[in-house]
Amino acid sequence: MEFPGFILNLPQTEAHKPDQGILYDLLIVGGGPAAMSAVIYAARKMLNCALITIDFGGLIRETSEIENYLGFQSIDARDLVARFEEHVRSFRIPVLTGAAVKEIRKQNGDFLLLTESGQQFSGKTVIFAAGEGHRQLLIPGSKEFVGRGISYCTTCDAPFFREKKVVIAGGGNSAFTTAIDLMRVHAEITMINFAEDWQADGTLQQRVKKYDRIQFLDHHEILRIEGSKSVESVVIKNRSTGQEVSIQVDGIFIEIGLVPNSGPVKNLAQLNRIGEVIIDCTCRTNIPGLFSAGDVTAIPHKQIIISAGDGAKAALSAYDYLIETAKI
Amino acid sequence: MEFPGFILNLPQTEAHKPDQGILYDLLIVGGGPAAMSAVIYAARKMLNCALITIDFGGLIRETSEIENYLGFQSIDARDLVARFEEHVRSFRIPVLTGAAVKEIRKQNGDFLLLTESGQQFSGKTVIFAAGEGHRQLLIPGSKEFVGRGISYCTTCDAPFFREKKVVIAGGGNSAFTTAIDLMRVHAEITMINFAEDWQADGTLQQRVKKYDRIQFLDHHEILRIEGSKSVESVVIKNRSTGQEVSIQVDGIFIEIGLVPNSGPVKNLAQLNRIGEVIIDCTCRTNIPGLFSAGDVTAIPHKQIIISAGDGAKAALSAYDYLIETAKI
Repeated sequence: MEFPGFILNLPQTEAHKPDQGILYDLLIVGGGPAAMSAVIYAARKMLNCALITIDFGGLIRETSEIENYLGFQSIDARDLVARFEEHVRSFRIPVLTGAAVKEIRKQNGDFLLLTESGQQFSGKTVIFAAGEGHRQLLIPGSKEFVGRGISYCTTCDAPFFREKKVVIAGGGNSAFTTAIDLMRVHAEITMINFAEDWQADGTLQQRVKKYDRIQFLDHHEILRIEGSKSVESVVIKNRSTGQEVSIQVDGIFIEIGLVPNSGPVKNLAQLNRIGEVIIDCTCRTNIPGLFSAGDVTAIPHKQIIISAGDGAKAALSAYDYLIETAKI
Repeated sequence: MEFPGFILNLPQTEAHKPDQGILYDLLIVGGGPAAMSAVIYAARKMLNCALITIDFGGLIRETSEIENYLGFQSIDARDLVARFEEHVRSFRIPVLTGAAVKEIRKQNGDFLLLTESGQQFSGKTVIFAAGEGHRQLLIPGSKEFVGRGISYCTTCDAPFFREKKVVIAGGGNSAFTTAIDLMRVHAEITMINFAEDWQADGTLQQRVKKYDRIQFLDHHEILRIEGSKSVESVVIKNRSTGQEVSIQVDGIFIEIGLVPNSGPVKNLAQLNRIGEVIIDCTCRTNIPGLFSAGDVTAIPHKQIIISAGDGAKAALSAYDYLIETAKI
């Protein structure tokens, strides 16, 4: 239940930057739905909080249409992120974007947050909601050609590969979804999977396998990516026969999974074996005062509405902690 | 992350009624945000599911403006419920409204759901999301005059009490929010609290205490409600002095808290001491195949976005269970 009496009616103002000299009640790290929903609840509880993030939306921006966020039958992913950001910015919360968080550590019973660019922020509590990033392919050429033929985002980049030759690395749902995006621009596709067989859902596989300009190579390894200014070929090895071949391509889409962005808390909070932050049902980590929500946590299902709900839980748990410890 | 490849694009059709002869993959009980979000995820996983509820929206309908559901800066509560319902009905899911669930029990490894009106439905799994209801005042007159001077919903009924004399029973946030609604219609208000002092947030109390047509009686008990056709007076006792007085009123608003609607599973699932369903972080109860989400659960913070997130978790957990047990 909501209580209309809690409505703050704060004026909409230009967000200001967080102050390195202030001990905030709450620092929120991340710009996805968990962090954004946490801001809303923290602001309405009148906590003195700041948001530190690389960007707003994170991986949602790479999706096309969203149809499973209760209240929106169908909405473009970027439009949904814009609505979220507008909602967040309607509160007087200092926001620092473009900031990669390097480390969060305990300091005198509070928390110290260090950014990659050397800024430091202090908080009595922290909500860590840094999400997930793409698992990188670590082979020769894989760093050099990012943005020059190598893509981790088909929603962003598919239009550049109209009727071009592309490789998709991966065999799961996201690899097959990438194939669908590239089918729409009539690309000539080779799908390459390290494992034998394909992990994607059956219906998705059926849909992709109807396309006539696609080749499936499972049990193959990508050895290196070659080219001069941009990607020109990939060298692959048949893991059954050991045979190596070079195939000429214009681009390679890497869809080999996601990894939690838990680096900044890896020396602080308890993580599971795949590096996700372990939380309880109210989004508390094992460290009092440190909360976590969204895709970076061990909650198995990664969905926008789940992250938004857990972001709200984390903010209300942080508020409860601040009251219980008489820190506010 | 969402995958556009999963989009079902099912046609919008008139929802049909659940069939008593079918063993559904999933029965969803409730019509609030937890149940509605569960429907969306179940439908997209192509589960054969049915929704059984008294109504859509539940307690949300009694709220006025919602400002903390990520994506909607400010929306009328009934408009938000209408958007939710429209989203739910865009899927081909059989829906039974007007149905109070009496009991859910195990039967041959599946679940049998009995309604108050004698209907029976079967499901391999159940998501129980029946929410909360108002705690009733159990004194002479309290049953007879419901709708005839006794109200549990100020959003619904405040306009009927313009410049009338009313009593508000309760001393927490919802009682004070009710006072604000009644201040707007210039009612003459007496607030009566069983306990000494008032439990509402300080800012809310300050706002209400500025009103000049309000009287505060804490440490008082309401003994009975009297009248002929409708409420005419309430008899109250000063718990400090024992003195009883009758005060003349046109209405009484009862805001003494909420109770979980967990009756239908009280002989099946583990409940906490206040009757809330105990769940783990993926919305599983102690009974395999029975899931729960939303305000009926022991998750402490009752919020729309939290219920919606947990409803999605419950549906995905039900799907995982059906796969793991080879029931689908």
